Amino acid sequence: MEQDSRLAGTVRPGGRTARVRAAVLEATQDELVLHGFHGLSMDAVAARAGVGKTTVYRRWAGAAGLVADLMTELADQSAAHADTGTIEEDLRANALSVLAAITDERLGATLQAVIAAATCDKEAAAALSTFYERRITEWGKSIDLAIGRGELPEGTDGHEVIRAISAPLYYRLLVSKEPVDKATAERSATRALVAARNGAFIG
Amino acid sequence: MEQDSRLAGTVRPGGRTARVRAAVLEATQDELVLHGFHGLSMDAVAARAGVGKTTVYRRWAGAAGLVADLMTELADQSAAHADTGTIEEDLRANALSVLAAITDERLGATLQAVIAAATCDKEAAAALSTFYERRITEWGKSIDLAIGRGELPEGTDGHEVIRAISAPLYYRLLVSKEPVDKATAERSATRALVAARNGAFIG
Repeated sequence: MEQDSRLAGTVRPGGRTARVRAAVLEATQDELVLHGFHGLSMDAVAARAGVGKTTVYRRWAGAAGLVADLMTELADQSAAHADTGTIEEDLRANALSVLAAITDERLGATLQAVIAAATCDKEAAAALSTFYERRITEWGKSIDLAIGRGELPEGTDGHEVIRAISAPLYYRLLVSKEPVDKATAERSATRALVAARNGAFIG
Repeated sequence: MEQDSRLAGTVRPGGRTARVRAAVLEATQDELVLHGFHGLSMDAVAARAGVGKTTVYRRWAGAAGLVADLMTELADQSAAHADTGTIEEDLRANALSVLAAITDERLGATLQAVIAAATCDKEAAAALSTFYERRITEWGKSIDLAIGRGELPEGTDGHEVIRAISAPLYYRLLVSKEPVDKATAERSATRALVAARNGAFIG
């Protein structure tokens, strides 16, 4: 897993550098949830993390840099794709993991703060794009496994299937402001699967 | 059409009340695009519209009230559902109309400003919800017509089909920050149709 190697290697858990980064990213997330992206201040993050301002300014290039690093860390911590042995169950697991993320009080608020900022800020948009690209790529592997097992037609675009499962959940959350629950998530997975089985995601 | 009757009736085109409302909503949209929802000021709207502040304060209860009325007006102005005679073409028209809205420089920026605000403001969320509910209900009629023609199974949930077509476009626009083009829109319509034909939108 890329996640394991990164956390065990680059970040050196237990080292001072790793502890500072963990404290600063935790504080960044707290501030983001409380004040939004445009209310994020390097000084407030440093104070909340109990880390010297100069350290924060030296290591992260502005508030947008903090958010980008936070999104990298959240992607690192995200679960690997499911591999239950059937595509039905893998896609259902994907939909439920998206539901869990967006309805989690802290993670959901973090994602919504960055999504709101990204409507008018290029750096927030880049951080968001990187995060979701990694999640889409990771879960796309479940579709490749299904193609290998003969459950889905050759040439099915796994990334598009994963986007199609997430999309209705985010649409309700952000756009139509309708409730998102387990039934919504399960229906979304089923509909994407029906379309995929019938070749609608080829090419 | 509810649209026609409202514009021709309640608003009394040509009357002073209608002219004031048109000027104020136009100015609201300008300010929203320039400064976002949280930067929207009643005074700036009144000045830009060339309308007395007292008139604006008397008629609209705050900035959120202006945005709610703007969203009502935008829903009024939106096109009625397509009725081409085939569900393929109607759904394709729906996808292309969503694409046109979100990529329109002015309308797209307006929708994104309200979507961003709605992540943390209940009044913005309510205005957004009302707007999309009306669009979803309007276009859901195309699915009912298709069921009547025998093109889609009885019990197909037209509102869900319409949400499913829009969702991947908004997901790319707001969440994964990926390009949204004509091919994206057409694929979205096709995939929803394939799932609908195979009964995935029943119930």
